[in-house]
Parts: sequence; C-alpha cells; structure tokens
Amino acid sequence: MRTRDECLDLDARDPLALLRREFVLPGGQIYLDGNSLGPVSVGAQRRIREVVDQEWGDGLVRSWNAAGWADAPFALGDRLAPLIGAHDGEVLVADTLTFLLAKIIGGALELRENRHVVITDAVNFHSDLYIVAGMAKLAGRDIVVKTIDRDTLHEHLDEDVALVMLTQVDFRTGEMLDMAKITAAVHAAGALMLWDFAHSTGAVPLDVTAADVDFAAGCGYKYLNGGPGAPAFAYVASRWQGVLRNPLPGWLGHARPFAFESTYESAPGMRAYLTSSPSVIALAALDGALEVFERTTMTEIREKSLALTDLFIELVHDELGDAFEVVTPREHGRRGSQVALRHEHGYGIIQALIERGVIGDFRAPDICRFGFAPLYLRYVDVYDAVQVLAEVVRSSAHLDERFAVRLAVT
Amino acid sequence: MRTRDECLDLDARDPLALLRREFVLPGGQIYLDGNSLGPVSVGAQRRIREVVDQEWGDGLVRSWNAAGWADAPFALGDRLAPLIGAHDGEVLVADTLTFLLAKIIGGALELRENRHVVITDAVNFHSDLYIVAGMAKLAGRDIVVKTIDRDTLHEHLDEDVALVMLTQVDFRTGEMLDMAKITAAVHAAGALMLWDFAHSTGAVPLDVTAADVDFAAGCGYKYLNGGPGAPAFAYVASRWQGVLRNPLPGWLGHARPFAFESTYESAPGMRAYLTSSPSVIALAALDGALEVFERTTMTEIREKSLALTDLFIELVHDELGDAFEVVTPREHGRRGSQVALRHEHGYGIIQALIERGVIGDFRAPDICRFGFAPLYLRYVDVYDAVQVLAEVVRSSAHLDERFAVRLAVT
Repeated sequence: MRTRDECLDLDARDPLALLRREFVLPGGQIYLDGNSLGPVSVGAQRRIREVVDQEWGDGLVRSWNAAGWADAPFALGDRLAPLIGAHDGEVLVADTLTFLLAKIIGGALELRENRHVVITDAVNFHSDLYIVAGMAKLAGRDIVVKTIDRDTLHEHLDEDVALVMLTQVDFRTGEMLDMAKITAAVHAAGALMLWDFAHSTGAVPLDVTAADVDFAAGCGYKYLNGGPGAPAFAYVASRWQGVLRNPLPGWLGHARPFAFESTYESAPGMRAYLTSSPSVIALAALDGALEVFERTTMTEIREKSLALTDLFIELVHDELGDAFEVVTPREHGRRGSQVALRHEHGYGIIQALIERGVIGDFRAPDICRFGFAPLYLRYVDVYDAVQVLAEVVRSSAHLDERFAVRLAVT
Repeated sequence: MRTRDECLDLDARDPLALLRREFVLPGGQIYLDGNSLGPVSVGAQRRIREVVDQEWGDGLVRSWNAAGWADAPFALGDRLAPLIGAHDGEVLVADTLTFLLAKIIGGALELRENRHVVITDAVNFHSDLYIVAGMAKLAGRDIVVKTIDRDTLHEHLDEDVALVMLTQVDFRTGEMLDMAKITAAVHAAGALMLWDFAHSTGAVPLDVTAADVDFAAGCGYKYLNGGPGAPAFAYVASRWQGVLRNPLPGWLGHARPFAFESTYESAPGMRAYLTSSPSVIALAALDGALEVFERTTMTEIREKSLALTDLFIELVHDELGDAFEVVTPREHGRRGSQVALRHEHGYGIIQALIERGVIGDFRAPDICRFGFAPLYLRYVDVYDAVQVLAEVVRSSAHLDERFAVRLAVT
C-alpha cells in the first residue's frame, strides 16, 4: 500500500513539478476537474492584461493589424498544432466546438454526395449528437444519422457511409479510442473521419498526420486551460483544404475580406473556415495558456497522466475495495486522463467531496468523474484526494439529505 | 463659423461629459472609429479582472452556477434589451453576429415554407450577404436571394417573399433606415423581418417592440464597446419564441442540458437559440461596458450624436468647402452616428489623419468614415479633428507616395 511519503517522493522526482507554479490555484483545494474547466495560468493572465490594457486600450482599432489580431486564429492554430500532430496551416482557433463541428459536418456531407449515412456514437457528448442531426437536416437530401454502439462500428461501415464522427476520449468513462485503427477502417469503407478531441487535446498524445485523420475539432477550456467558454479549434488536413466547403461562410473567410465583395469567394487554406472574428481577449487567454505546453512534451505529460490515474485507481481500491466500479479502462492504451467511478450515490459523493475541497464532477446517472491534469497536479494531491473520498464513503457523508435533490452540475 | 471656444462651451454644458471618465482613452488621439471598435472602459476592465482572477481563478468550475456564468448570455441580454426597446427574455448574447444571423435566417425560412425569396440590400455588409446565401443553400429547397437597391424594396414585396434582411444603419454611408415603416411594409406582404443592428445599437434609439420587429441581431464591439470580437446579440420577439427553430442546435439550448439526453428537445424562450457557451471573459467585458449606458438614456445619446455629426459636417464645409462629398444624409431622421465623406484619395487622407492622431477608417473604394460616439467624444474633439483634416488636405499630405499602395484596413 502506497504511503503519503512515497507520493511526496514521486513529486520530488517529477520532471513536470515546476510547471505547477505557472498556475494560479486556489488554496485548500485539490482540483480534479481540469477535464471540465482548466485553471487560470500566469501566462493567460498576462496575455489578457496585455490585450485589454495595451492592444485594445492603447492600440484600439489599429491592433487588428499592428498587434496581429486578424491573424490570431491562425497563429494560435499553429501554436496548438504540435499538440495534435498537425502541421502549420492545418489548425484554426475560433468559435465554439459545436460551430466548428457544424462547418466540418456540413462540408463533409457535400464531399460524399452519393452516400446517405453519418455514423456516430450513441453515447457521444450530446452537443455532438444534436449538431450532427442538425447538419444532416440542413444537407438538403436524405441523410440518416446512425447512433451506434461504437464497438460495433465495423458492422456499420459500408459504401453508403459518408462520415464517421467519434469523440476520441469518452467524456463520461474516459475510454480512449484507437484513432489510427478506426480512421483506417473508415477510410477503407470510403468514408470520411471526423474526430472530436474535447477530452484529448493536452491530455493524451495525438498524431492526426500519422493516423491520416481527415478532420478534427476540440475545445480550448479543458486540458488546454484557455478559460471558460474558450474558443475551440478545428483541424482540416491540408489535402482537404480548398476542397471542403465552409457552409457557414463569413467575411473573414473571404479571399479578399476588405474588398467588400458582394459574392463569397473562399480564401485559400484554413482561412476558408473562419466565419467572423472570435473574441480577441478569449484568444489571448488561450494563447497564454498554451505557453506552458512548450516547456514540456506530450510524452512527458502522458507518462505522468498514466502514473496519476494508475495511482488513483490503486489507492481507491486499497482504501475502499470494491465500493466503486472503475468504469475507465485499466489498459493504458484505452485510457484518457480521467478516471470515472460508478456509484449509485455518485451525486452525493461528489457534493460531499466538493464541500471538503476535492473538486470532481458528476455525470448522470451515476458517474463520478476525476480529471488528472499533469501540468499542475501532484502525486500527493492524488493521495490526499483519495483519503477524503475514503472518509466521505466511510462516514456516509454522501447520504446527507441535502444531496437528495440533484442540482445542475457542470 | 464655429470657434474652438464655442465647442469648449458646448462641452461644459454637455450632460454626458462626465461619462468620458469611464473610458480609458490613449493620449494624443481623437478616436473617431468607435463605429468599428469601441474603446475599453473602466467597467470592462474591472469585470474582466473579476472574472479572470476571482470567478475563474478562485471559483473554477463552480462558477458556472455560483457566479452565474450559465445564465450570463441571458442576464446580459436583459441588460442590453432596453437599448433596443425589447423586453426581458427577448435578447441573447452569444456567438458572433454572423452565427446569430445564420440561426435566425435558417429558422425563418422554415416558417415561410411556401415562399421562395429572401430579400436583402445589395450594399449590405458583405458578411450578411455571404451568410444569407449560405443559409439559403442549406434550406433544402429552392430559395432565391434577391440583393436589391433598398430604395426599391416595395417593388419586390410580394407573396413569394419569405424574409427581408436589412441593416438599419448602412456601414458605409451611415444612412439610417425607417425601421417601423419598412417592417410594416414587409409584414403587409406576409414576410418576416430581420434587422441587423451592427451600426445602430448604442448609437441610435431603437424600439423593436413599437416597430413590431420579428428578429434582430447586432454586434457588441462597436458602439457598445464590448471589446474586439465581442459576443453578438440576437432578438427574437416573444411571439416567435418556441416557434422559430434553431437550426444549429447545441447542448446549452436543450430543455435539460445536464440530463445528457441523446435527442434534442429545445429549451423554452431565448434559451433555444443558445448553441454552446460563448467566452465568459468576453461576456464579462461586454457586461462591464454596458454599465455606462445605465447612467444615461438613448435620447440623451441621440441628441449629442446628432449635435456632433451636425458640427462635423458644418466644420468640414466651413474649412474645406466642397472638397468632400458628404455621403451621409443631412436629415436627422436618416442619419446614424457616423459621417461618411467621399474623396478619390480617401485612403491617403485616412492614413495621413491616423499619423496625426485622428483615427477614422477607410471603406473601399473612396469612403472616409468617421464615427461619433457620444459617451466619450467631446465637441472640441470634433473641432480639433476637422482642423487636422483641413491641414492634411491643404498640405496634400494625403498624396504622399507611401499611401499609393492600399493596405488592409479594418
């Protein structure tokens, strides 16, 4: 059985330990919800101040050019690209994840105009389900959206499938899918592949180039720490740029935005997928948040992530035996950077933990989610969090009647 | 001929004079481009700091409920509603103007499913033209977008018109359209009316209720001073809520977003038109920026706006005779809060002015735009700006060869 001192020793030898100082973490808490909203970093705070006080305050409208605002969605995309294995010019930061998915889905359906099926995961994040249904309806032809058990994907891949959209790390269970293998199977059927990286980027190594991914999109406010409602990102493989149409066009995606032409003509490259300007302040927050990733590698992050989740699973078992079902896969190759524990009183457990300064979250009907962000979490945090969890369960604090009514929990 | 002292006297008697202190304006400049990007305010700076340092920094994920982030798009909508004559629960703040237009256009086309024409202004802002064409293409049936000379609108209004979309103040010329009269004519033809308030909100009094407007949308970063790329707003008259479908649905528009249901069921009210979360930091900037509007009225703002633009037109004529064609209507009832001057060397004039600290902007091919934001501009600023303009023209500074090549100007 692991001791607290062993965890402190792991921290002392942790190559990422110094990066914790780059985050502004509230005292008295152990934050295991970075998979929902990452914390603020020194870099994000500094960039926000620069943009608000100097670029907006002093530079005013001239900052669109002088401070690079007009190019920020692409400069930031290039900064983010290495985290997913993309090249310069293949990533755009803008909008929200749902809008970027809408553009890609709408465009992709036009690229496979003789095929009628879109496949997605029945337990995909629900906003993905809603927008794929929405864009199928707008396709102007009969499109069937099949929401399947993802483990049976191969049974559904035939010559009528236009597009497959899957989330690479399951938002509830933390299961990670084999991106290269699935993409190859989809391509073998002649279909296109769109990956949602919401719970992947910044948490697990990704290589869209090696996996030959067509399209991907992800969000900026989870493991990337870009702030609440941060802009999202889209990846369009260079081979599809100029081919994939943006069905929601706007002036900033025009070939000559300042010529004020009345007819839309798509800009080349990723610029085609920009509709209008995202908040420059929100871009700055994400820009600052990405700095810390440049002081490490996704390999180092992944090593620590697996060590943290292994430790958590091991300690929970040591302390509480089988009180929880560990929903997240034990195999490293199938695990993201979170651990999901199933418990019939999961809601009360999370509430009792929050009251004691351990911040996880609850996903209906019975999942306790704990995210492990290697940039700022310590091994000793994992140890301490499990002690609090054990105390809650042993004392039945989670059965307090205050938790009988479920409130909205993000 | 007006003297500088007379202008100083007007400032001394200006009931809005004190509000200038609420803005952080760079020294040595006269900013006549608030119709493109409003300046930062003390309120915006304070709210950004609160959200970043306290709500995000300390509150972390709990701030979605505890700090009201989840309701911010609607709370901010209610705060903005009085500026357009809307009621509580009729305005949403989110996304960008183009996305909000997309949702409304897509939904509106479904409400008039037996009609095939959308009418818009041939000289509308080009992003509006692109998105209306884009959504017409996604309607799944034959829709013709007619881009007309808006002065001939009555000739085009027949029983095949589904929707009319116009911008209430022309972004180039500053001409203001008669919202009530046009809306009534559109309704008489059985069509729906969508107004773009990008250059109206915060600049001219608007009353969507009195004018019986169906839908409207506007942007947050011009006269509202919400910051670069600020979230936009949408107005859907309460009679259309629950009727107008959101064709780009997302989880935050679901009736039960945290039930994680696989099928979309629209929330009631304006919530239906929210797709996913806008940047909370960007919402905070706009929230802070709106505070100053609560210390005055749109009537006071309008009075000063007309006085400023009258003064500018008068002084330009006094100093420079007919060197410029005044494109903006002289009639108060047809004028927004900007003045557009046509000059064949308009680009060079604007560049020369900017070098001398007078910030206007240029719109191709030959329009010099000057925006007059009554919250922070003084009469003496108008006087001084015209002196600089006169000096530029008289000295031919605008003919400098550096201005022979046009750069992108926002």
